[in-house]
Amino acid sequence: MFPSHEALGEVYVAILAGGSGTRLWPLSRQARPKQFLSLVGQSSLLQQTVARITPLVPPERILVLTGPDHAPLVAAQLPELPRENILVEPSPKGTAPCLGLAALRLRARASSDQAVMLSLHADHVVTAEERLRAALRAAVFTAREGYLVTVGIVPGHPETGYGYIERGEALAEIAGQRIYHVARFTEKPPLEEAQRFVASGRYYWNTGYFAWTLGRILGEFRQWLPEVTARLEETAALLSADPNPEAPPRPWAEIQPITIDVGIMERARRIAVIPCDLGWSDVGSWAALHDLLPSDAAGNALLGDGLYVGLDTSRSLIRGQGGRLIATIGLEEMIVVDTADALLILPKSRAQDVSALVKELRRRGLGKYL
Amino acid sequence: MFPSHEALGEVYVAILAGGSGTRLWPLSRQARPKQFLSLVGQSSLLQQTVARITPLVPPERILVLTGPDHAPLVAAQLPELPRENILVEPSPKGTAPCLGLAALRLRARASSDQAVMLSLHADHVVTAEERLRAALRAAVFTAREGYLVTVGIVPGHPETGYGYIERGEALAEIAGQRIYHVARFTEKPPLEEAQRFVASGRYYWNTGYFAWTLGRILGEFRQWLPEVTARLEETAALLSADPNPEAPPRPWAEIQPITIDVGIMERARRIAVIPCDLGWSDVGSWAALHDLLPSDAAGNALLGDGLYVGLDTSRSLIRGQGGRLIATIGLEEMIVVDTADALLILPKSRAQDVSALVKELRRRGLGKYL
Repeated sequence: MFPSHEALGEVYVAILAGGSGTRLWPLSRQARPKQFLSLVGQSSLLQQTVARITPLVPPERILVLTGPDHAPLVAAQLPELPRENILVEPSPKGTAPCLGLAALRLRARASSDQAVMLSLHADHVVTAEERLRAALRAAVFTAREGYLVTVGIVPGHPETGYGYIERGEALAEIAGQRIYHVARFTEKPPLEEAQRFVASGRYYWNTGYFAWTLGRILGEFRQWLPEVTARLEETAALLSADPNPEAPPRPWAEIQPITIDVGIMERARRIAVIPCDLGWSDVGSWAALHDLLPSDAAGNALLGDGLYVGLDTSRSLIRGQGGRLIATIGLEEMIVVDTADALLILPKSRAQDVSALVKELRRRGLGKYL
Repeated sequence: MFPSHEALGEVYVAILAGGSGTRLWPLSRQARPKQFLSLVGQSSLLQQTVARITPLVPPERILVLTGPDHAPLVAAQLPELPRENILVEPSPKGTAPCLGLAALRLRARASSDQAVMLSLHADHVVTAEERLRAALRAAVFTAREGYLVTVGIVPGHPETGYGYIERGEALAEIAGQRIYHVARFTEKPPLEEAQRFVASGRYYWNTGYFAWTLGRILGEFRQWLPEVTARLEETAALLSADPNPEAPPRPWAEIQPITIDVGIMERARRIAVIPCDLGWSDVGSWAALHDLLPSDAAGNALLGDGLYVGLDTSRSLIRGQGGRLIATIGLEEMIVVDTADALLILPKSRAQDVSALVKELRRRGLGKYL
């Protein structure tokens, strides 16, 4: 029913693996952020992302975009990936410059402007993997029709921390997968608005999963971000001469950070959304991770290889390591994360405040723990 | 006003240092229990106990009673103490056999039955040290008059975890220190009874601080515990030939454990109590220790040399060590105790349950963490 690799045509996947994952400190560290950790299952979120996509696209066409510090980690975790498919983002500039540079470098490889680029994030969990692949197949065909395509997640609750996509008219249906025009993008809404969005059935979470042809996206860059695009072209030329410069190339350094949503998606026309129920999570906090993990009868989830003994402890996440013993009495809905050099303890309800804690550690000169 | 060392006459102090302090796990361990730890101030509770008593009694007359495993630790912490003053209790048998054996061994050293033996515990905190010494001076004189003497603590609250001493008629006053006949000993009372005790003004906490002449206490042992006493005499003879036997001597091993309160004090006549307000604590739990430690403006007390960063954390005790960082968000009235191999987290209100946890660890074969 669905086309094979070949029938899908020339498709590249760009996996964004440049996040810092500070809300999962102290497990997620600058040297080894969230996407490189085995949080759910035995392999890392990055490895799971690649495994999820390889039934659609072979490793030769999967690119990982990451910072210079993490390129060796990507190579170690993905030995099947050609080394030249690890594209180093010289310094963090937001998703627009990152995806624009990837599109330019792909254009130098691809046979035509009609080659499709999919973009995914390296640090998400997707449990309905076949549904994601079905959505991405539909996205490829929709992109070839000239659309910018987004995957929209059917929202499970009125989350205020995500952007929303409002659907417009129906556009098509491919193998049972409905596709809509996008009416509007909305940044993180207040709670009441989020509640209305969810109740309406016409809004989806914006995951940042995209599909477009190289011709279409590069055209959008030239139209909406002409100065950025000029600097990206200079950067691409410099990097093709010296792929691992000691410092970010000057034109890259001059770029003002901007997201693909603000820079392109909220301005462009002819955008499609493919709604999907993926069992998706961005694992955005310890509370979110707790909800993803299997729990015992008391609702406790254990992570890591530490030793744990609890009395009257319930609905808590305990993460230990090595031969260290964690013992608790009378904890409810608490998060305990123990690592070799740092220990974090907080109520699950305060999970969003870990990034404030990380800022405080930096302010106090405790960067060596980050 | 008060007599010097010499004027106090022949006085020995026996410090009981055989406790296991399990309610302060994981800091208090089998290999290094509570009395050997520096919990309040720079020296250990044992060292503080000895320092507290040396203005009254010179080190040559201070004995420390402890188990075979801990004798080297006593010697290391108290280099000024003659080695023969460390009396090894061959195995735990409760306070009656321990004090009886000490009395027998002291009798072999002392010049007469009129020599006075004071007994103290190694793992208590006393902030009003001069008041304790005044009470013990009065206790020595009262003991010479033929009394078994106890120090009673003026109770600060209706504690159900301690024994109480009810005072009877006034007996004497020495240098402003009132002394009463004891009417009755009561083991740990229910809350309502404890409340009545405290309200009456006639009850004191039984600290287990005693004074008696060697003649009087050995007479009581022979009267109330004749079989125990016979075995203690055999044990004393065996130990004087071989002070460090590989296994407990057979007569000692045959003794049934019993406390001095049950074995002697609750049966004997002519007992005196010296009421005293000592700023006393038996440091019987993490909550009790928290109350003894200096707190910051948020009521948090820090122990150990760990690094600590807290957001919105109040009225909590945080104990860390080494270069490890402990970070907390949103904790209230919590206890966090981190050590090299074990971490304990509990609400302050559950501090009494640490001994249940220790039992659970033993049941699970995790004795190496105890």
